[in-house]
Amino acid sequence: MEFVTGVRKKDTLELNELLAGDIIDEHVKVNGAVHAIRDMGTVAFIILRKREGLLQCVFEEGVSKFNLKDLKEADTVEVTGILAESDKAPAGIEIRIEDVIILSGPAEPMPLPIAKWKLNTSLEAKLNYRPISLRNIRERVTFKLQEGIVRGFRDFLYGEGFTEIHTPKIGAKSAEGGANLFKLDYFHRPAILQQSPQFYKQMMVGVFDRVFETAPVFRAEKHNTKRHLNEYTSLDFEMGYIGGFEDIMAMETGFLQYTMELLEKTYAGELKILEIELPKAKEIPSVRFDEIKKLVSEKYGRKMRNPFDLEPEEEQLISQYAKEEWDADFVFVTHYPSKKRPFYAMDDPEDTNYTLSFDLLFRGMEITTGGQRVHDYHELLKKMEARGMTEEGMEQYLSAFKYGMPPHGGLGIGLERLTMKLIEEDNVREATLFPRDLSRLEP
Amino acid sequence: MEFVTGVRKKDTLELNELLAGDIIDEHVKVNGAVHAIRDMGTVAFIILRKREGLLQCVFEEGVSKFNLKDLKEADTVEVTGILAESDKAPAGIEIRIEDVIILSGPAEPMPLPIAKWKLNTSLEAKLNYRPISLRNIRERVTFKLQEGIVRGFRDFLYGEGFTEIHTPKIGAKSAEGGANLFKLDYFHRPAILQQSPQFYKQMMVGVFDRVFETAPVFRAEKHNTKRHLNEYTSLDFEMGYIGGFEDIMAMETGFLQYTMELLEKTYAGELKILEIELPKAKEIPSVRFDEIKKLVSEKYGRKMRNPFDLEPEEEQLISQYAKEEWDADFVFVTHYPSKKRPFYAMDDPEDTNYTLSFDLLFRGMEITTGGQRVHDYHELLKKMEARGMTEEGMEQYLSAFKYGMPPHGGLGIGLERLTMKLIEEDNVREATLFPRDLSRLEP
Repeated sequence: MEFVTGVRKKDTLELNELLAGDIIDEHVKVNGAVHAIRDMGTVAFIILRKREGLLQCVFEEGVSKFNLKDLKEADTVEVTGILAESDKAPAGIEIRIEDVIILSGPAEPMPLPIAKWKLNTSLEAKLNYRPISLRNIRERVTFKLQEGIVRGFRDFLYGEGFTEIHTPKIGAKSAEGGANLFKLDYFHRPAILQQSPQFYKQMMVGVFDRVFETAPVFRAEKHNTKRHLNEYTSLDFEMGYIGGFEDIMAMETGFLQYTMELLEKTYAGELKILEIELPKAKEIPSVRFDEIKKLVSEKYGRKMRNPFDLEPEEEQLISQYAKEEWDADFVFVTHYPSKKRPFYAMDDPEDTNYTLSFDLLFRGMEITTGGQRVHDYHELLKKMEARGMTEEGMEQYLSAFKYGMPPHGGLGIGLERLTMKLIEEDNVREATLFPRDLSRLEP
Repeated sequence: MEFVTGVRKKDTLELNELLAGDIIDEHVKVNGAVHAIRDMGTVAFIILRKREGLLQCVFEEGVSKFNLKDLKEADTVEVTGILAESDKAPAGIEIRIEDVIILSGPAEPMPLPIAKWKLNTSLEAKLNYRPISLRNIRERVTFKLQEGIVRGFRDFLYGEGFTEIHTPKIGAKSAEGGANLFKLDYFHRPAILQQSPQFYKQMMVGVFDRVFETAPVFRAEKHNTKRHLNEYTSLDFEMGYIGGFEDIMAMETGFLQYTMELLEKTYAGELKILEIELPKAKEIPSVRFDEIKKLVSEKYGRKMRNPFDLEPEEEQLISQYAKEEWDADFVFVTHYPSKKRPFYAMDDPEDTNYTLSFDLLFRGMEITTGGQRVHDYHELLKKMEARGMTEEGMEQYLSAFKYGMPPHGGLGIGLERLTMKLIEEDNVREATLFPRDLSRLEP
């Protein structure tokens, strides 16, 4: 028997430790993957890929005690040497190699030129080789920023008194959903994959007042577009005791403000690699659905075709309008038509053709749908009845309302869409680690 | 158009604000759900349930401007009144009610006596009415503590240089898994639900060195026990450049130490409600599989029946042994037999009948499986071949190795099991928000 007492300091150093500054000219030990080898004759630059970035190591014939020919790209190594300052090295420092130990090696040469600064490869090829293409420094940064977004979401909401929940993704068939649900066999019973944690988070408002979840959702939609995925990560929250759906928009604005600050502070290196300008979130314009449709139609001379929904091109124009008129990267569009919202959306008492709900558009794309929900049991039943829905599979959801629920509302944010727009890409797959779409089930 | 500028301070106060101390005798406004009404004649106590706990409000005939008969349990209300100190109130304060506004009401009386301190209801009934039974203060606390565990996991790992990832839950069929996988139809192609993010997190070690994920996993196992779920939340991490599987155990020990401190500091109120004593994690004994089997067999006079696996009763006895001999709540059992570990587990070079792997037992139950993985491409192929596995559906996983992977390892922790043992329950469903088992697909 031995005791394990926790994490011990390693003798290998990370980039931030090397950069701390007071160990220049000292012996150091580092590990990493050989990202590139630039052989200049008697001198060679060996670029190591570490989790925080690239590190230049210098091989000098006669000084370094190993044979350069033994080393190849994609080896993982442990390097010992002298730490030195260097203007030309990516991190401003380099290691003058004394020795190299090879920890592991590849079986074949790399299929993609991952050591290039920009990986000029088709999206298709990048996705086919995802675990390899992400070894490119610029490619992987997207997912570090994505981490920052999720982290910002959680940390902000913890601070606002929300409780994190984990709701089941396998469920019974219910009257909601229908065609867009993936179906599976659950021990000889028909089951579905949840398209949203909507019902669960609402039920949990009755328990914790404010709840959130960051988890996968599943949509069997046959869309094959740049903006649709069949599985994505949804950032969901739901909160009770609201004065109106404006409280939900205020909370989302707070999240965006908090997260942009977090990214600026903690993910500055990543933002710099992609040369990203963070969007403005200090104040976000909020404008009615029918109003902005009219404004956009007038300003850009575009005929309104569907008064009850926004076409992708209209979302583009609304964002263009918000940028031009209000210098805004985000814009809330409120009071969506009732017929385009689910049964649990609360109708506007002043005009029940519209709902107390909103979408958030970011650089031309809807990234959030939210709003106030019906909290009265009888009203909920009435709305279901009006849509010809039965209570099948929804008994437990309805029972939460039967036994009392506070006024409440919430939203769902598509993590990959938000990430995509943040990095100014136009295909959501760029911001999805391993996308699932109509044709892609692997890797 | 209006601007949304972020979260604004509400005029309703939360418990922590009421308790801050400098507003005794002042007018305050609060909201909450009517948890219980204790009518004593001319005075009545109205207990509000808020997200942080219970708040006593006092109705006094002639002083309070509303009719007590208009109020019932499960109403949600907004109360105005004078804040006062009170020795007998649950939080040490109470509100002398001036007025009450009813925000919403239930349609039927409560089906469970949720206002009782202990909800003496069968597990079956609690689960059938989950969104209601969790309104009981003691019942809901479990999930607040569960939040603390997940939060501790993430925050600790961020600090250790890990990157959070989101991997797909729908995947192609592969040579691994087999009978224990849920199958679904993915646009007319056979697909499965992932039983673990294992392959994805390993692939991502080649990208970020250290990664983690907190997400659902799915197991179509036909177990019907107190310790099995068919869907659960797995806390997974995987790290590169390890010196051995001991590094993984050290990281888990660090996580447990960090998390117990977090719980003690931030979730003290919740721990007190359940009267929980936190387990010791300062040093965790680590002992070989074959050794502890022998020790336990000798000490408790129990015959070893299966030399290659631990029976549940043996896990119990190992924990009992660890408590008695080493005063330990956790115990690592290392070097599991190779035939009980998956193909990617690294065999011990000193005796290939055993692996460089471990389980962590906590109060008599396995809550973690982890270890070092094979990182060499050819060795991995050899191990698959020896088990008669084909490469079908695993091409991308294998390609990560083909193009070089550092020595690495990782683990998976069952969140619900860890929570269950923390709160000293013996059925994992107690620690699962909405359990999925052989018979339960709702709510």
